[in-house]
Amino acid sequence: MSDKTAEKYRKLVSTIRDIADIHQAAGLLGWDQQTHMPPKGNDARSRQMAVLAGLAHEKHCDPALGEMLDELYEHPELTDEQRALVRETKRDRDRSVKLPLDLVKELTETAGRAHVVWVDSRKNDDFSAFAPLLGKLVDLKRQEARAIGFEEGGVPYDALLDTYEPGATVQKLDPVISYARDQSVMATQAIGGSSRRPKVEILKKNYPAAQQEAIGYRIIKQMGYDLQAGRLDEAAHPFTSSFDPCDVRITTRYSINWLPSSLFGTIHEAGHALYEQGLPVEHAGTPLGDSLSLGYHESQSRFWENQVGRSRAFWSYFYPELQKLFPENLGSVSLDDFHFAINTVEPSLIRVEADEVTYNLHVVVRYEIEKALFAGDVEVEDLPALWNQKMKDYLGVEPQCNADGVLQDIHWSLGSFGYFPTYLLGNLYAAQWTHAMQKELGDIKNLIENGEFAPIKKWLNENIHRHGRRYTTDELAVRVSGETLNPVYFADYLKERFQELYDVTW
Amino acid sequence: MSDKTAEKYRKLVSTIRDIADIHQAAGLLGWDQQTHMPPKGNDARSRQMAVLAGLAHEKHCDPALGEMLDELYEHPELTDEQRALVRETKRDRDRSVKLPLDLVKELTETAGRAHVVWVDSRKNDDFSAFAPLLGKLVDLKRQEARAIGFEEGGVPYDALLDTYEPGATVQKLDPVISYARDQSVMATQAIGGSSRRPKVEILKKNYPAAQQEAIGYRIIKQMGYDLQAGRLDEAAHPFTSSFDPCDVRITTRYSINWLPSSLFGTIHEAGHALYEQGLPVEHAGTPLGDSLSLGYHESQSRFWENQVGRSRAFWSYFYPELQKLFPENLGSVSLDDFHFAINTVEPSLIRVEADEVTYNLHVVVRYEIEKALFAGDVEVEDLPALWNQKMKDYLGVEPQCNADGVLQDIHWSLGSFGYFPTYLLGNLYAAQWTHAMQKELGDIKNLIENGEFAPIKKWLNENIHRHGRRYTTDELAVRVSGETLNPVYFADYLKERFQELYDVTW
Repeated sequence: MSDKTAEKYRKLVSTIRDIADIHQAAGLLGWDQQTHMPPKGNDARSRQMAVLAGLAHEKHCDPALGEMLDELYEHPELTDEQRALVRETKRDRDRSVKLPLDLVKELTETAGRAHVVWVDSRKNDDFSAFAPLLGKLVDLKRQEARAIGFEEGGVPYDALLDTYEPGATVQKLDPVISYARDQSVMATQAIGGSSRRPKVEILKKNYPAAQQEAIGYRIIKQMGYDLQAGRLDEAAHPFTSSFDPCDVRITTRYSINWLPSSLFGTIHEAGHALYEQGLPVEHAGTPLGDSLSLGYHESQSRFWENQVGRSRAFWSYFYPELQKLFPENLGSVSLDDFHFAINTVEPSLIRVEADEVTYNLHVVVRYEIEKALFAGDVEVEDLPALWNQKMKDYLGVEPQCNADGVLQDIHWSLGSFGYFPTYLLGNLYAAQWTHAMQKELGDIKNLIENGEFAPIKKWLNENIHRHGRRYTTDELAVRVSGETLNPVYFADYLKERFQELYDVTW
Repeated sequence: MSDKTAEKYRKLVSTIRDIADIHQAAGLLGWDQQTHMPPKGNDARSRQMAVLAGLAHEKHCDPALGEMLDELYEHPELTDEQRALVRETKRDRDRSVKLPLDLVKELTETAGRAHVVWVDSRKNDDFSAFAPLLGKLVDLKRQEARAIGFEEGGVPYDALLDTYEPGATVQKLDPVISYARDQSVMATQAIGGSSRRPKVEILKKNYPAAQQEAIGYRIIKQMGYDLQAGRLDEAAHPFTSSFDPCDVRITTRYSINWLPSSLFGTIHEAGHALYEQGLPVEHAGTPLGDSLSLGYHESQSRFWENQVGRSRAFWSYFYPELQKLFPENLGSVSLDDFHFAINTVEPSLIRVEADEVTYNLHVVVRYEIEKALFAGDVEVEDLPALWNQKMKDYLGVEPQCNADGVLQDIHWSLGSFGYFPTYLLGNLYAAQWTHAMQKELGDIKNLIENGEFAPIKKWLNENIHRHGRRYTTDELAVRVSGETLNPVYFADYLKERFQELYDVTW
């Protein structure tokens, strides 16, 4: 490479790293907001986050950066890896320059305020308190979608989907989502007709938080989560925050009378954290050191939570320890009964507590509502009724209050529209990776039942994590599994796990 | 005011508020670094803080801001308050523009790394591990002092003093500090000759952290610290961080076998926090909403810690509660014995654990070393020996290891040279304010012994806090007490409190 090109590339990397540092700093402000900030601090915090978002946006839109990117884009002297960095940086910047600075600032500030109002409105089951700010957020996101634009033949909602899942469009998602929906509906109905019922009540006894925390730490350490480069806190809505591969934090919540909440919530977030800790630290702050998409991210958390964490093999390893922590509750409960209980399928109201079979239907409800919102077919005031109707249609259950319905999720309060479908994609990818992984490692239950997670983590590190955003979502899927997203693996996985447990077929 | 001037002023305020938000965001990163950050996160954190510091500096030095300030400086259409905002903003910026961006970035990054190394080197009592980074910091601060400059007839160290105590110079401080030193030496010697000795061992029993925390919360709430706009955490070296008057956080440390550490540490930090919470929120992010100086800040913490917190009146109110929390340790200890014990005077090695009489001597050691360092008379490798010699000279005690000597304080690891003298100024001002306060409120022990802190807090709010940086340190001292800094009040206070306890005179 010529010195001139090398110098240009070096300058590009340094510039985008500075921008990433501003985002990471803002990320810490957000983490603190949800874990440690005193309540009266919120106005100032929203303002500070807005200022940082504005600064990052300003630097991102600097014409000098645009020129650097134009000069280096598909430059023949660059390596494939370097070209990928330029390509992805250009993709990000092209999106950014379309967004007016005022809109970015207003969105960040509104979301900061909306989040706090949402917390109260959910607590008080008062949708009307949240509605005005939600309406403002939808309006701002409609402006954002228009500003970003979309492919010919597409819809404005595509612009939002693409934020979280590069390349995703309604046209591409609709068939995948309807296939997944049909599979879930079939499975839910078949299971509903089974006479077998797990003893769920064993999970509803008194489970003190301290012991839940103890088993949580035990499991995430065994998974390979590095606590010298991370930490575990409590938050109302669990999440993972990364400020660098060496500082990746997870949160969980302890439900005293519902053990699975923290148990699988903690494993889930640790799955996300392993992805972030597995990103190449030498590329931190660049697209090569960044996660590929939220669908890929969710495939990591769901893989650990479900494929691994709800397997019989996993508990044949950990169950004796769990029994020791809760001898009164579990001392006389068999492994099979425990395993069946944590795999209960039961249509319910709350997404984050939903089982694997009905989970995707919760996503479908939100996907269809968001599509309608951004097509202008419905407005914010219609949401509670629309939500309840769809829950009835797909899951056969109806919320008795908005706190258990349209107010349950944090996402809209943060302006994150287009985010939900990535949960469903994560479920599908997780099954696809498991299938691919087993071609190399053999049946992973043989590893899991011995607590040998290191080869599994290593496989994920090498096949997925270490690539950052070097490949597109489709390209990486092909590298990992030989094909692009294929929802059949998830359908097969559901059958394999649940047909035996419930003694049904579909 | 003309529309044009009003618009210029509005724009100025908006600009400096954005800069303040960047500083506050960086402040949160620093708070997190010392309270919650996982150890491996430090490199990224240092980098992120350096980027934010660089950004704030860049915005601060923007020539457009300089033009705004020049146009508005002493503008006849502005109110006195507005003129003060312009004057102080200009003062800050004039300092900033003298600092090259590279130096600012290097200082922040070096300090971030040095801090972590210092933690380990103190733990391992290994000065040589810290020395290279300390040397680099001194070198960078020498560059900073040269870049900022100082008044004719002054010395480079003045430039650093002025960072923390606007207007302070060696020439102004030397007589005050030598008077205070002589008073402390006299008092220490007189007390050393007394036959009275407090029963200090009652404070060295087993005091579990949970109960220490309980009494800490009890006291700071009664002082009026708003926990809806603040929080209390643990940190190796207690400090107060403010990100807005509505988000002011304190930290403390619990020493299981030394009760005074958390007890007075918590009161001390809460005193700082009351100042920050008392700043006018409508001026947040501007000099009118900023604390005046570190000397003034310390006067608030020391006032609450010592004038109030170590008084007999304070414990005649709180001691029964403390006895209930620690019945085995204190149940049969009289109030007088407890009060005498917490006012023990004993030359010792550690500044933060020092009593009121000898405390200033610890500051004198550091002040004289810093003066010598920045005069170029000594170098970093000379510090351990020099430190130990001065401790012997002034306090009659000598550290057996550097962890108890030159490595004990966090300040140098953060590049904070010129900071220590403000502790001494705080002690002097605290006594001066008490004298002034009592002219209005009468003997405050009558309020304290009834737990009536509200009038005291209100007096401080109205006489000191609400003014922010509207007046200079000398001007505000005159408004508050009728005169500029006068060390006689502190000398009188020492006599009043300790001559009776130890039955001596000096």
